[in-house]
Amino acid sequence: MATFIEPRILKGFRDFLPSAEITRRHLLERLEQCFRSYGFVPIDTPALEYADILLGKGGGETEKQIYRFNDKGGRDVALRFDLTVPFARFVAEHRGELSLPFKRYHIAKVWRGENTQRGRYREFTQCDFDIVGSDCAAADFEILLIMRTALLSLGVGEVSIRVNHRGLFNRFLSGLGVLERSVEILRIVDKLAKIGTEETQCLLAQLLNDALAQEILQFIQAKGSFEETLASLAQAAGGDSPEVQRLTLLRQFMVDTGTAASFMLDPSITRGLDYYTGVVYETFLNELPDIGSVCSGGRYDNLAGLYSKETISGVGSSIGLDRLIAALEALGKLQTRASYTQVAIACIQEEAAGQYQALAASIREAGIPCAVLLEAEKLTKQAMLAEKQGARWLIIPGADPLKDPLTLRDLSTRINQEGLSLGKLIACLDNESI
Amino acid sequence: MATFIEPRILKGFRDFLPSAEITRRHLLERLEQCFRSYGFVPIDTPALEYADILLGKGGGETEKQIYRFNDKGGRDVALRFDLTVPFARFVAEHRGELSLPFKRYHIAKVWRGENTQRGRYREFTQCDFDIVGSDCAAADFEILLIMRTALLSLGVGEVSIRVNHRGLFNRFLSGLGVLERSVEILRIVDKLAKIGTEETQCLLAQLLNDALAQEILQFIQAKGSFEETLASLAQAAGGDSPEVQRLTLLRQFMVDTGTAASFMLDPSITRGLDYYTGVVYETFLNELPDIGSVCSGGRYDNLAGLYSKETISGVGSSIGLDRLIAALEALGKLQTRASYTQVAIACIQEEAAGQYQALAASIREAGIPCAVLLEAEKLTKQAMLAEKQGARWLIIPGADPLKDPLTLRDLSTRINQEGLSLGKLIACLDNESI
Repeated sequence: MATFIEPRILKGFRDFLPSAEITRRHLLERLEQCFRSYGFVPIDTPALEYADILLGKGGGETEKQIYRFNDKGGRDVALRFDLTVPFARFVAEHRGELSLPFKRYHIAKVWRGENTQRGRYREFTQCDFDIVGSDCAAADFEILLIMRTALLSLGVGEVSIRVNHRGLFNRFLSGLGVLERSVEILRIVDKLAKIGTEETQCLLAQLLNDALAQEILQFIQAKGSFEETLASLAQAAGGDSPEVQRLTLLRQFMVDTGTAASFMLDPSITRGLDYYTGVVYETFLNELPDIGSVCSGGRYDNLAGLYSKETISGVGSSIGLDRLIAALEALGKLQTRASYTQVAIACIQEEAAGQYQALAASIREAGIPCAVLLEAEKLTKQAMLAEKQGARWLIIPGADPLKDPLTLRDLSTRINQEGLSLGKLIACLDNESI
Repeated sequence: MATFIEPRILKGFRDFLPSAEITRRHLLERLEQCFRSYGFVPIDTPALEYADILLGKGGGETEKQIYRFNDKGGRDVALRFDLTVPFARFVAEHRGELSLPFKRYHIAKVWRGENTQRGRYREFTQCDFDIVGSDCAAADFEILLIMRTALLSLGVGEVSIRVNHRGLFNRFLSGLGVLERSVEILRIVDKLAKIGTEETQCLLAQLLNDALAQEILQFIQAKGSFEETLASLAQAAGGDSPEVQRLTLLRQFMVDTGTAASFMLDPSITRGLDYYTGVVYETFLNELPDIGSVCSGGRYDNLAGLYSKETISGVGSSIGLDRLIAALEALGKLQTRASYTQVAIACIQEEAAGQYQALAASIREAGIPCAVLLEAEKLTKQAMLAEKQGARWLIIPGADPLKDPLTLRDLSTRINQEGLSLGKLIACLDNESI
C-alpha cells in the first residue's frame, strides 16, 4: 500500500493561488511604476546572510524572531527579517560603485518567526524606498510625496500621512531636562494609539513623574492645522530651531504641490525604532484608519554605521503590502481576476492544434492574450472551461482554422458573431477591450 | 574605538546593483508577458517548507545540497531547491480549487548549497511553466512553442530545441531486452554531450555488454532531418507506436506554425531526472551552443504522486535565467541601463523643491519618468549627476519654475533648447523617446 506525505505548509506561510497572485503582482507593478517614475532604481540582496550582519550588535525582539541556523559549511546564517539591514550592508559594501544621492527601491520577501495569532505572517513582502546621501528637506519631501502617489495609485482612496520630527521632540524633552530618557519616552509615546491616553500617562509617570508626564502628554496631543500645531510645538520646544525650519519648509512643499490636505503634523508619531533621528511618519487610510499604518518611515543619520566608518544619512519608507490588500478587501475595492486571458480558441479537431496556435499567434501579436483549448470536448464544456480560466470570448474556428470564417462567442451573453475574418475578429476584440 | 562588522555576503550569493537588477527585471518582464499571452497564470509558494515535503522519499544529491534546519518551534524545515516539488505539493493541496488543465508559471528564487567552483550560484531564479491535467499532444506542443517564443523575445537569437521521447527510447530498450536497466542507461546517455562517445560506450558496456552498448550508441546517434531521424528511430523501436504517432503529430504542429526550423529530434536527449515519461527536450542557443541548455523539461505521468493518490500528468519546462544573462553578455547583446530615468530637473533654489516636484508631476503624468535633483549644486555637477543616474535630458527651470520658460539640455551633446513652455518641453521629450 502506498503511503502519502500529507501536503501541508508551515503555519504563518502562504500559497498564492492565481487570482491572489495576480492581484499581488498588479499592486506591485503599480508600486514599481511609481518608484521608477520618480527615478528610483531597483536592487536585490540575498535572502540568506551571515547572522552577525543581520543581527548587528542588537538582539532583543529580532533575535527571537529571526530564522537562524548553521549551513552545511558550518556558517552561522539567517534569513533576512527586513530590507533595511541588508540595505545598510549593501551601501557599506558597494559604496564605491554608488553615486550619491542614491535613490533605490527594493521589493522582496522577508521572514520573521512571529506569533501568528496576531494575524501576522511569517513570510511577507516588503516594499522599501529610500534616498541615501542627502540630508536636505527636498529628500524628506520626495519620500513623503512618493508615499502619497504610490498609495493613491493602488486605489485605496485618500490617505492621511501623519508627520512628526524626532529632533523637535528631543528639543522639547531637553527643555524638560529629560533628554537622556528620550529612547524610553519615545517608545512609550509610540504606543499611544494602541494603549490610550491614561495608560500612556501612567507609564510616563512611572518613568518620570506626574508633572512631566502631564507636560509630555500635552505636547503630543497638540492639535489643529499643520501650521497651528507647528506653532504650538515650536513654542513648547524653545522657539525657532532647525527642526521647526525643516517642518516649515516641508509644509511649503506640500502646499506648492497641491498635496497639503494629505498631510498632518502629529506630535504623537515617534516610531518605535531607535535609528530615526529626523522626520518620522505613518500613513492611515481615510476610509479604514483602524487597520493601522500602511506606510511608515523616517530620516536616519547613520545608515551603515555598523559596517563602515563613513556616515551616510538618508530617509526612507516601507509599504506594508499585506495590510493594504486586507484593506482593499475590507473596502470592497479589491479587483480580482482569474487570469490575463481575454479570449480562448476552441479545439474542434485535436490534429489542428498547430493551426490553432498559428491563429493564436496573430491575436497575441495584436497584444491580446489568447489561450488555446487543448482537447476536443463538447463546445459547451469548452465554453465553461474558457470562462473559468477568465476569458470573456471564445473563438470557434472552422474546419480550416486559418482560412475559414471564424465565430466569436461572447461568453457572458452566449451571443455568437459569425463569419468573421481574422482581421475583423481582432478589430472586434480590440474595440471591446477599450 | 568603534569596531565594525565587515560587510560581506555568503559565497555563492549575490547582490544585484541597479543596472544588473534592471536587466534581470527587464528579462523577467518579457518572460511574464509571454507566459501571460498564452493564458498562463502566476502562483507563488513559500520559500520555506517542511523538509519531508521537499525531500519526499528521495535523498541523494538533493539531500546533500538542501538548506535544512530546525525552526524555533522544533519543526524540520528547508528552503525550496526547485519549483517542481512545491508545485506538486501545491497541486495536491489545492486540487479542489484548480480547474484542469491548469496552466501556471512560477518565477522565484531557489537555494542549493552547490559547489560554487563550477560557477554555480547557491541562490538563483527559476522560471517554470507547466500544463497539468492534460496528456494530449497539443499540451506538449504548447510548452515547446512557449519555450521558443519566450527565448526569442529575450533577444538571444535563434534557438535549437532538441526533442526526444523517453517512451520511444524505452520501447527500443525493451526490444533489446534491457528495459529494467532503463533508468541507469538513460542517466549514462544523458551525459553524452559532456563525456563524449567513447566514455559513454565504455560506461554502457560496463553496465551491459559491448554489443548492446554499440546498438544503444547507434540509436542515440541517429541523425538527419526530424522526419528521417524519426523514421530510423521508429524502425529501431519496433515500428509504429503511440510514441511515434505523438512525435509525428508534434512535427506536424511545428510545420503548421512555421516553427519547424527551431526543432530537431535528438535521441540522445534523455534528461537525468527520473520523473519524465514522455517527450523531453533541451534548448541550445545557435550563437552560443557551448553554454549548455538554457531551457529544459518534459512530460511526467504522475506529478503529485507523493502527496495524493490522484494521478495528475503534465508537461513543463524551466528557463535558466542566469545562464541566459551570461549568454547575452558573452554575445554582446546584454542591454544595460543605469535607471529608468529619461529626464532630471535641476535644482536652482532648494526652497523651490515643491515647485520642481509639481513640474515633475506633469511630466510623469505624460508617462515620462522624471527625477528631481535635490541639492542646489553647480549646474555642471548636477548635469554629471543626472547623466550618472541615466538621464538623457536635464531641465533647467527659471526663478518661477511653473511659469517661467524652461531650458532643456541634451546631456549627450550639451546643447540647450531655451524658452520652452511645459507643453512644448513634454512634446520634445515624447518625440525623442520614440
